[in-house]
Amino acid sequence: MAQGLFITLEGGEGAGKSTAARGLAEALRAEGHEVVLTREPGGTKGAEAIRALLLNQDLPLDALAQTMLHFAARADHVAGLIRPALARGAIVICDRFYDSTMAYQAYGQNVPIAQVRALIELVGLQPDITFLLTLPEAQAQARLAQRAAATDRYEQMNRDFFARVQAGFAEIAAAAPERVVTIDASPAPEAVVATMRTALRARTGR
Amino acid sequence: MAQGLFITLEGGEGAGKSTAARGLAEALRAEGHEVVLTREPGGTKGAEAIRALLLNQDLPLDALAQTMLHFAARADHVAGLIRPALARGAIVICDRFYDSTMAYQAYGQNVPIAQVRALIELVGLQPDITFLLTLPEAQAQARLAQRAAATDRYEQMNRDFFARVQAGFAEIAAAAPERVVTIDASPAPEAVVATMRTALRARTGR
Repeated sequence: MAQGLFITLEGGEGAGKSTAARGLAEALRAEGHEVVLTREPGGTKGAEAIRALLLNQDLPLDALAQTMLHFAARADHVAGLIRPALARGAIVICDRFYDSTMAYQAYGQNVPIAQVRALIELVGLQPDITFLLTLPEAQAQARLAQRAAATDRYEQMNRDFFARVQAGFAEIAAAAPERVVTIDASPAPEAVVATMRTALRARTGR
Repeated sequence: MAQGLFITLEGGEGAGKSTAARGLAEALRAEGHEVVLTREPGGTKGAEAIRALLLNQDLPLDALAQTMLHFAARADHVAGLIRPALARGAIVICDRFYDSTMAYQAYGQNVPIAQVRALIELVGLQPDITFLLTLPEAQAQARLAQRAAATDRYEQMNRDFFARVQAGFAEIAAAAPERVVTIDASPAPEAVVATMRTALRARTGR
């Protein structure tokens, strides 16, 4: 049976995850792999509908409810898109996954870590490899300032919140060195993609 | 500190839960109690937005995702409405709660019971008493036929599904006799309310 590969990209706002995900997808496609490039929250019709609720800053939502919404979207995404793609042997690259929920909701919004872990167990699927893109805060802020005004629930949060999220990502990476590869996102996008491609081969042999 | 009372009403479609909930609320208010009458999915702005996704039959959703959406709505409802009402000593009457998710998603849609139990633990709040309203199937069908055409995800399901849901409610009641009181919903609404009022006093002393 075909054996897919499940790659996730994680990191704070402004670290260049989306650009890096597209670049890695292009590099792998150029080698002849089938690549499914997706993102969270979203990726299926149901998950995109849930995403709209999550990003609507005018809708008040309890932190545990937000966490469960992320996992509801994830359950639909995994069942409807990710598992079928892996089953036919594709490489799936997902922009954000479990670790973002752990960093933003548990470390950032103080939802108990055990509650996020329980929800991870319900979905069950684990990434084969995770790239954590990191950037010094000043550089991340500069990149964000170039974008349009912050418009969603999380972009509106304050600096303390983002410091907790960054600390969360660092703890997650330290606790799972067999899965998480930390990547310096300061260089040009092509260099970041080349670093990821090399690390992918070293870790998975593919 | 004030001590509220959390009452849930459960049962299949057509059993008269909403009418019974309103009647019980009126009876308790007439005795001078503060009563908060609410329903699931819904009860807060966030939960009502999630309800709209759940009832949208044109939105495909994986069964675990549906289950998590019910619990996301519930987490918001519990944090935003039910716990604050109980904390100030009110009686909360909720039309559907955990048991409906267990009956519809686990027994009806084959989501593992252990997964629903894990989600119940995350929300944590347990009803003080649950009234399970039951009706012979022919009578429930006759009541439903008087309503407008079925328009939501669950009303569209087939007869086998409803048989599994009914069996689920019966198993839930049998497994938790200290909490669940089964009520014959065949008599006139006033008689059903009087039976609930009597059972409430016998079980809770209030």
